[in-house]
Amino acid sequence: MKNTFGNQISLTLFGESHGEAIGCVIDGLPAGVNVDLELIKKRLSKRRPSEKCDTPRVEMDNFQILSGTFNGKTTGTPLAIVIPNENTKSKDYSYGKARPSHADYTAYVKYHGYEDFRGGGHFSGRVTAALVAAGAIFEAMLENVGVKIGTHILSLGGVYDRNFENISRDIDTVKEMTFPVLSDIKEKMMEKIEEAREAKDSLGGILETAVYGVPAGVGEPWFDSLESVLSHALFSIGGIKGVEFGSGFELASMRGSQANDQFFVENGTVKTKTNHSGGINGGISNGMPITIRCAVKPTPSISKEQETVDFINNENASIEIKGRHDPAIVRRASVVVDSVCALVVADMLATKFGTDFFVK
Amino acid sequence: MKNTFGNQISLTLFGESHGEAIGCVIDGLPAGVNVDLELIKKRLSKRRPSEKCDTPRVEMDNFQILSGTFNGKTTGTPLAIVIPNENTKSKDYSYGKARPSHADYTAYVKYHGYEDFRGGGHFSGRVTAALVAAGAIFEAMLENVGVKIGTHILSLGGVYDRNFENISRDIDTVKEMTFPVLSDIKEKMMEKIEEAREAKDSLGGILETAVYGVPAGVGEPWFDSLESVLSHALFSIGGIKGVEFGSGFELASMRGSQANDQFFVENGTVKTKTNHSGGINGGISNGMPITIRCAVKPTPSISKEQETVDFINNENASIEIKGRHDPAIVRRASVVVDSVCALVVADMLATKFGTDFFVK
Amino acid sequence: MKNTFGNQISLTLFGESHGEAIGCVIDGLPAGVNVDLELIKKRLSKRRPSEKCDTPRVEMDNFQILSGTFNGKTTGTPLAIVIPNENTKSKDYSYGKARPSHADYTAYVKYHGYEDFRGGGHFSGRVTAALVAAGAIFEAMLENVGVKIGTHILSLGGVYDRNFENISRDIDTVKEMTFPVLSDIKEKMMEKIEEAREAKDSLGGILETAVYGVPAGVGEPWFDSLESVLSHALFSIGGIKGVEFGSGFELASMRGSQANDQFFVENGTVKTKTNHSGGINGGISNGMPITIRCAVKPTPSISKEQETVDFINNENASIEIKGRHDPAIVRRASVVVDSVCALVVADMLATKFGTDFFVK
Amino acid sequence: MKNTFGNQISLTLFGESHGEAIGCVIDGLPAGVNVDLELIKKRLSKRRPSEKCDTPRVEMDNFQILSGTFNGKTTGTPLAIVIPNENTKSKDYSYGKARPSHADYTAYVKYHGYEDFRGGGHFSGRVTAALVAAGAIFEAMLENVGVKIGTHILSLGGVYDRNFENISRDIDTVKEMTFPVLSDIKEKMMEKIEEAREAKDSLGGILETAVYGVPAGVGEPWFDSLESVLSHALFSIGGIKGVEFGSGFELASMRGSQANDQFFVENGTVKTKTNHSGGINGGISNGMPITIRCAVKPTPSISKEQETVDFINNENASIEIKGRHDPAIVRRASVVVDSVCALVVADMLATKFGTDFFVK
Repeated sequence: MKNTFGNQISLTLFGESHGEAIGCVIDGLPAGVNVDLELIKKRLSKRRPSEKCDTPRVEMDNFQILSGTFNGKTTGTPLAIVIPNENTKSKDYSYGKARPSHADYTAYVKYHGYEDFRGGGHFSGRVTAALVAAGAIFEAMLENVGVKIGTHILSLGGVYDRNFENISRDIDTVKEMTFPVLSDIKEKMMEKIEEAREAKDSLGGILETAVYGVPAGVGEPWFDSLESVLSHALFSIGGIKGVEFGSGFELASMRGSQANDQFFVENGTVKTKTNHSGGINGGISNGMPITIRCAVKPTPSISKEQETVDFINNENASIEIKGRHDPAIVRRASVVVDSVCALVVADMLATKFGTDFFVK
Repeated sequence: MKNTFGNQISLTLFGESHGEAIGCVIDGLPAGVNVDLELIKKRLSKRRPSEKCDTPRVEMDNFQILSGTFNGKTTGTPLAIVIPNENTKSKDYSYGKARPSHADYTAYVKYHGYEDFRGGGHFSGRVTAALVAAGAIFEAMLENVGVKIGTHILSLGGVYDRNFENISRDIDTVKEMTFPVLSDIKEKMMEKIEEAREAKDSLGGILETAVYGVPAGVGEPWFDSLESVLSHALFSIGGIKGVEFGSGFELASMRGSQANDQFFVENGTVKTKTNHSGGINGGISNGMPITIRCAVKPTPSISKEQETVDFINNENASIEIKGRHDPAIVRRASVVVDSVCALVVADMLATKFGTDFFVK
Repeated sequence: MKNTFGNQISLTLFGESHGEAIGCVIDGLPAGVNVDLELIKKRLSKRRPSEKCDTPRVEMDNFQILSGTFNGKTTGTPLAIVIPNENTKSKDYSYGKARPSHADYTAYVKYHGYEDFRGGGHFSGRVTAALVAAGAIFEAMLENVGVKIGTHILSLGGVYDRNFENISRDIDTVKEMTFPVLSDIKEKMMEKIEEAREAKDSLGGILETAVYGVPAGVGEPWFDSLESVLSHALFSIGGIKGVEFGSGFELASMRGSQANDQFFVENGTVKTKTNHSGGINGGISNGMPITIRCAVKPTPSISKEQETVDFINNENASIEIKGRHDPAIVRRASVVVDSVCALVVADMLATKFGTDFFVK
Repeated sequence: MKNTFGNQISLTLFGESHGEAIGCVIDGLPAGVNVDLELIKKRLSKRRPSEKCDTPRVEMDNFQILSGTFNGKTTGTPLAIVIPNENTKSKDYSYGKARPSHADYTAYVKYHGYEDFRGGGHFSGRVTAALVAAGAIFEAMLENVGVKIGTHILSLGGVYDRNFENISRDIDTVKEMTFPVLSDIKEKMMEKIEEAREAKDSLGGILETAVYGVPAGVGEPWFDSLESVLSHALFSIGGIKGVEFGSGFELASMRGSQANDQFFVENGTVKTKTNHSGGINGGISNGMPITIRCAVKPTPSISKEQETVDFINNENASIEIKGRHDPAIVRRASVVVDSVCALVVADMLATKFGTDFFVK
């Protein structure tokens, strides 16, 4: 449904980069969930430009909750979050020249020239702040039922982090980091970003996410398999062009005897020896951690001159993108990925166990 | 919605491997579309085991259309297709030992032991026959508006096909092939499959799909971005564990200046020089071919003995899977991928242009 | 979604009056519910023409369940029911002259002449047989949790039945009756029907329905208020042109002090002294019986000559409807009303309490 | 979907009576529609208490559009409207005693005591202001394609208005009236209201609505018949307990020969001589005006002492409702009814004709 996502618990997103505000409405929340304003601030701050690798455009994200809470807890009715836009420099943007690999041209075709093009409009990464604020609310709900989610930068500019190992502990670790990596590679990655910035260029990367604590039996195949719904939400994040679960594309070159995750019982609990399936069999959770990797393309906004078209005059043109941009959005995207995964997992749990599951 | 997918045009899937029949109901079809029974048969036959690399269980797929057509054309009301099951050898299956990386255990947990486990039940690849029959109807609709879809085996057992080049012609080529490859590698791939079969093992592979002719401006971001909806449908196919668009995971190691697709105008039409974005910018088609790659895991049914659990008694066990299985489902999955892509693209076009777009 | 209805539990309807078959697919059923074939037959038989007031076209409704059951219980995967059409006399129908107050003309406009017009096609009451078969499955689920539903003919041809009084008992009574009335008025109503038939005319009526045993707290306002979702389903039944809850239209001429249902506690349970609200406050059940009345228009198929148009030639015409028709569909509609109410209530309970609520 | 309604064009509602703000998000709007701020103000002013029959609580409805417009036109991306709450006297409300026929008790059961009870919270008529603001946007879109909607008070306190006659002109008339009636009966109705107020009591009434200009062929049966979707939206408005189309409940006592609307051709256009069907046959518009009547129950907030329960202590109690209330909400509900009908009709047109239909 366009800008609404979710079944039992759903989120409706609105806003443009340089409009009045961005925000979202969350519906289907159970009543009685703590709304932790400090946690929302913390998660927004993780998404906010802060490292020197980020854009210098900083917004304070002074969010306001307009409805759906009472005495610090959810009421069960729609919770609307509004985050005003500030620090917008609309004059940096002109209209008509399509920034390559941006949505300028496609938005023009779809919206017939009526789109708010300033700063990328509704297609701006700015809009993800609303997802992150919402994610903090889902995070608290999930914690109540023993589920937690974390993402780290698996690769950036040719520098690789180690994979998740002790998943529960690793999630706790990366959750608290502004630049979430599991090994000592932050500086190397930062160097690569700095190199790209100096070259008026940008970098992509891979994010690896783990969801810990989802009980076996969650997922609604065929079409609402866990992979289906997670990928749906993840591919809605701008810049994500690949999603894989478990060993993903590597599975294509494995034999069944290598790829299959053999089961065993440990202290009465069914587990698998390996987790090439990423915790999902037949679209349903098997109780092992759910593991996901997302390919994030390089920020398309680069300062180098590029060839393009002027779509108003339908003629060839060249463009030098001004303005303030991140040479790599991978770091900032990590908490957005956490947030949409939290929405999906909360929704799926509510579908199986009913609305009140999180507050029992 | 579990077993229903699509907005304007939707498909509801039903059936189990060893039940009476499998089938589907397609709703939202425009009235007046030709229902080409020969094309349905042809597509079903492409999915059917036929090559020596496939399972020896062959079903004739004597489908019946129960509703929604009149005088050989769609009526605009729901079109129900039923395909009876035949040649089922239920005695090959016993219950309680989870086949590794199959849905046996997760189905048991989700359905509390009431699932029809025979032959994988609702999780069987058998169910995809209904998708393929439906796909043939979408294919005809899409052809009316200049859209076509094709899939080839990009890799299998370490053997690689070339990528799509002349996409329109390549689609025409692979569409007619039972073993769809663009270069002369069928025999090498078949050898690899035969090796795996002899080793009581199985192989995975990568399918590459192209959608040609989608006009710019199609897609419903945020959440119904083209990537979101395509991946949702694709990940509902059993065995697909990775989906990427355009250059996908490769983009993660590229710089923006390499990854960006620069625009140009040719004969009044906006195009891009490269297509790393896979025809999609900001979740909306840009008029270039949409390119998708899916990672297909090795068939989990292998004859080798494997360790597992007996989930009824909650104890460790070992399993030797009997029965008739494909050492690689990649070939057969290709037409399933075509079919779900056709559903998504038809639905998206109907959303933008209205129900009657395909018959104008 | 056109021919699919429901959120957690949904039903997809297909078929035309004179096509191969009609049927439905039910999705989201919990696993482990008894599928009582005898109850399905009984309900279908209640809908079937049997009384002398009905059409002489009788079909045996030899339904088949194609999927979703195993060992007599639901599996939790989609349950498809198919009911073949028999005894179709298509030659009774000609095309082009719109039967007044039928869907002939509107279907022609919507489907551009491709509709299967025979016997009313997809708009035929015949299609409701699939709803009734499904209703029997919901009925069994609801009984497991103490909910039951019954409908009686409140008025027909100017003859009035008494209202529900002891609702639990009255439901039990009317459920078993082919001609469901609470007082001794069947013969009077039958006389009115016979008079209408002799006059080549037809009659409408009012159905009154009660749902007993829904706990307080069920309903999903704003938009999925209990009244909203029930009316949505009820108005999809052909011929229903009015729906009211509790005292309905009478409330418009009452004062608040008369209309308000004052609460009291009895044996620890909150009840209301009156039930003008029909068991629903603010779109949410209050624990009292839910009461609904539906206005059923007279069967539009009458033998009297009527003026109309020939929509193919776009000219005035006259029509004498041949064929076999019910002078009043009110009796047969009663079990259809029960069935769609059962779908809605089951879906709403699953939304609140989770999928497995019915089998706990 | 709880607080989201609509398919192609959808509306998500949020807010509580005494919270920060109420509002809504409209998605799926075509790009390029004029957003007429004056019309929004005018419609909000019609809903606002203004006549002496209304509550003395007046709010200025200083709405703000946060997104989805640019240069005075829709952008095609979600349009968020926020209306801050003012003039809230929360101390007028205490918690625990259920106001009869209000949602206090049912909300308590559903939300486990976490609901924002002040002023009725999310169940307050206050929330309808957001629907009315949205309605003004739909109204403008519909006018572009020749569709208009109007509602008058057909009955109130035993005083009856005449029915619609010249529907196009009558709509124009009542649209501009604060107290919309077609004959000279405003004063009589006002007297009845004043009498009720003095008696510490309240009144209900009937609203009659007409939708003019919907072309034949609109509606998506079975389940999204025009009646189904309109009633769904209408019954979500608090206080509406009955909905009928055309002659509605009167049809139940008519014969087919009286009830059937005979067709004729006039200047090449198919029309019906009568309109007992309310412009809808088989769930699809037939080109005649769509006519709807809604029963509005008396305002449940009356000053008279009433018996009730204290649901916290689960014991009998009595209540005298303080605060400021309308003795009859019928007048104010009229523009809310217009607004939800506008949403449904716009959505249905977009489904049939595509997103861009309104701006072609």
